[in-house]
Amino acid sequence: MAAHPAGRPAGSAARNGRRGAGAVQLAGIGTALPGEPVDNDRLSRRLGIASEWVETFIGTRTRYFAVDLDTGRARWSLEDLCTDAADRALADAGAEPGDVGFIVVATATPDALMPTTATLLADRLGIDGTPAYQLQSGCTGAVQAFALALALLETGAGGDRPLGLVVGGDVCSKHLDLCQDFRELPPGALVNYALFGDGAGAAVVSHGTGRAGSRAVLTRAEHRMSGLGLPPGQRLEWFGAADRHPYRPAATEDYKAIEHRVPAMALEVRDELLDALGWPPESVGHLLPPQLSGRMTERITRELSHGLEWDAVSCVAETGNNGNALVFLQLEKLLGGFGPGRRALGIAIESSKWIKAGFAVEAHHG
Amino acid sequence: MAAHPAGRPAGSAARNGRRGAGAVQLAGIGTALPGEPVDNDRLSRRLGIASEWVETFIGTRTRYFAVDLDTGRARWSLEDLCTDAADRALADAGAEPGDVGFIVVATATPDALMPTTATLLADRLGIDGTPAYQLQSGCTGAVQAFALALALLETGAGGDRPLGLVVGGDVCSKHLDLCQDFRELPPGALVNYALFGDGAGAAVVSHGTGRAGSRAVLTRAEHRMSGLGLPPGQRLEWFGAADRHPYRPAATEDYKAIEHRVPAMALEVRDELLDALGWPPESVGHLLPPQLSGRMTERITRELSHGLEWDAVSCVAETGNNGNALVFLQLEKLLGGFGPGRRALGIAIESSKWIKAGFAVEAHHG
Repeated sequence: MAAHPAGRPAGSAARNGRRGAGAVQLAGIGTALPGEPVDNDRLSRRLGIASEWVETFIGTRTRYFAVDLDTGRARWSLEDLCTDAADRALADAGAEPGDVGFIVVATATPDALMPTTATLLADRLGIDGTPAYQLQSGCTGAVQAFALALALLETGAGGDRPLGLVVGGDVCSKHLDLCQDFRELPPGALVNYALFGDGAGAAVVSHGTGRAGSRAVLTRAEHRMSGLGLPPGQRLEWFGAADRHPYRPAATEDYKAIEHRVPAMALEVRDELLDALGWPPESVGHLLPPQLSGRMTERITRELSHGLEWDAVSCVAETGNNGNALVFLQLEKLLGGFGPGRRALGIAIESSKWIKAGFAVEAHHG
Repeated sequence: MAAHPAGRPAGSAARNGRRGAGAVQLAGIGTALPGEPVDNDRLSRRLGIASEWVETFIGTRTRYFAVDLDTGRARWSLEDLCTDAADRALADAGAEPGDVGFIVVATATPDALMPTTATLLADRLGIDGTPAYQLQSGCTGAVQAFALALALLETGAGGDRPLGLVVGGDVCSKHLDLCQDFRELPPGALVNYALFGDGAGAAVVSHGTGRAGSRAVLTRAEHRMSGLGLPPGQRLEWFGAADRHPYRPAATEDYKAIEHRVPAMALEVRDELLDALGWPPESVGHLLPPQLSGRMTERITRELSHGLEWDAVSCVAETGNNGNALVFLQLEKLLGGFGPGRRALGIAIESSKWIKAGFAVEAHHG
C-alpha cells in the first residue's frame, strides 16, 4: 500500500473496522452555477405565491436554474455545467486534461440514460483512453464519488496519468414544469420549487504529497446505508415512452421523516468521523454541514456545533439545493480561507433511502 | 498491497502503464430472467411484422420482458430482478447478507432516479451499514462494476465484511410502448423491439484465495473510453414532468457506426488483454464475446476467434440484449463447465459513447 501524507492513526481503522482508501491531495476545485441568481421575489411572482412564505419556511434566498424561468427554454445541460466546473478545477490545479487518469461523475439527474454525462464531459475536455464512471446518487453523491476516487487512486486505476477528476452536479429542468398553474399545487409540491436549483462542481485529486499547488488534503471520504426497513424519505421518478402523460408526481418527499431523521444521522456521522480520525473536536476549525434548505441547514448546524467553536461553511441558502454540486460549492468556499494546519469536517445525508456520508479535509502545514 | 493468487506478471503492468486492482475470487453467481421466453413468432404477431425478418436480420431467437406483452402491465421491477439474482449469487457462494461489505449495481434503466436500486436491493436483502454504489452504464456496465469492486476489495472498503456484491441488470418496460401501432414504425425503430430484453445478474466477489466454494478467479476487469470526437452510436433518453408527451424518440441508434466500429474495438480489447495478462492465445480456452444481437455477435465471435480454438460463450440469442445483465449470464454459463486451470477472456463494447471493456477469468487449479 502506498504511504499517505495524512493517513489515519492506526487505531482508527480498528475502531470502525473499515480501512478504506488513503488520503489524497485536493489539487484543484471549480464550480458552475447557471445564469443569474433567482431571488424569492422573482420566484414567488413566477409561482404566484408569497415571498414571505419561502423566506420563513424554506429560508433559501436565491437559487440558479439551467432553464429560462420565463420561456421554459433549457439554456444549460448538466454536461455544460460539469464541463465548466471541470475546466475551472483543472485550471485551479494547473493541470492538463492529459494528466487525468480517470473521471467520476455523480448526479441524480443525468442528461440522458445513455451515453453518460461522464463520457460526454470527457469528450468536451479532450480526455480519452481512461475509465469514466457515473454514479446515480443524491445528496451523498459527491462523497461517494470522492470515496471511489480515493480507491481508484490507491489502486493505480489511472496508470501513468497522476490525476483523478471528480465531478458532481444536478439539473432539474426536465422536471421543472413551468406550464402548470402553480396556484393549484399543494404547498408540499411548491416546496420543491423553492428548495431546489441547478449547478455543478468538480475537484482534481492526486496521490501523494509532491504536487505543487495542491490546495489541501482529503483525509477521508466515507458513506454507508443507514435505513434498513425504513421507507424512502424522498423519491424522484423518470418517465419513459410508455408512460402516457405523467400520471404520478415526479418527486415525492416525506418532509416529516426528513426533519426527524437527518439531524440525528448528522450527529452520528460527526461522532463516527471524529472517532475514526482520532481528531479531538477542538482540533477542528470548520464544519461543512448537510445542505437541505437554508432553514433546515441552520438548525442542523446549530446542533452539530453546539458547544464547539466551529466555523460553518454552507452555501444552500444562496445556491439552492443543487444536490450533487453542494459539497463542491462548500469545499470551494472552505479552501478560499483555509489557514495552514486547519481541519474541516464535512457531513452529507441522503434522505432518499437514508445514507450517512462524511469526509475530512486538512490544510497543508504552513 | 495484498497478495493475489492470480496476479498479473510484473511485465504486463508496465506494458499498459496501468496497474489497476488485483484479482479477486468469484465466490458465487446468480441471474434472473422475467417470465417465459418470448420467441420470434409471438413477438412478430404482437408487433405485426414478419418473424423471418427478425430471424434473418437480428438473429435473436428469444428474449424476456418484465412487462406483460398483452396487457402492458409491469410484472417485475429492476429491483425485483436484481434481488432474485443477488439471492441466487449469495446462495451459490454459501454466503449470508451479513458477509457483504459493499454493493455495486450497474444499470442503464434504474427504476427511479432516487432512491437507487442498489439501496432498495440492499433493504430487500437485509444489508445495512455498508457502502452502496450505483453505476449509470450501458453494455460495459458489468465490467465497470467489477473493476470498481476490485478496487473496493483491495482498499478494504467492506471493513470486516469479506464479500462484495456486484449486480447488473436492465428493464426496458418504461420505454416499451405497447399502445402504439407498430405497423407505422420504420424498421430502424422496430429493431429495438426485437433486439432488447430484460434481466439481471449478480456475482459475489471476495479477496484472497481462502474462500471455500469459490468458483473461479476474476484476474482482471478494465474499461476505458475510446471514442474521442465521435458522435454517440446510441442514445437513450429519460423524460421528465416538464416533457410534454415525448416529442423525441426514447432511443436512437446509428447501427451503421455500431456495425463498423464494434468488431474493430473488440479485436483491440482482445489483443490489449492478452498483452497485459501475458497470456499466450493458445492458453485461453473460452471467449465471452460482446453481446449485441444474435447475428452481430456471431460475426464478431468469428473474427475474434479466427485461427484460435476458443469456445465461445454467448447468451444474447436466447436472452435478448438485456444490457448490464449479459456478462453475468455469460459468466454463469462459463462457470457451469469451467475445467480446472482453464482460462477465459471476456469482451464488452459500449456503443453509446464508445467504451472498450475486457475481463479475464481463471478456473482454480484442480
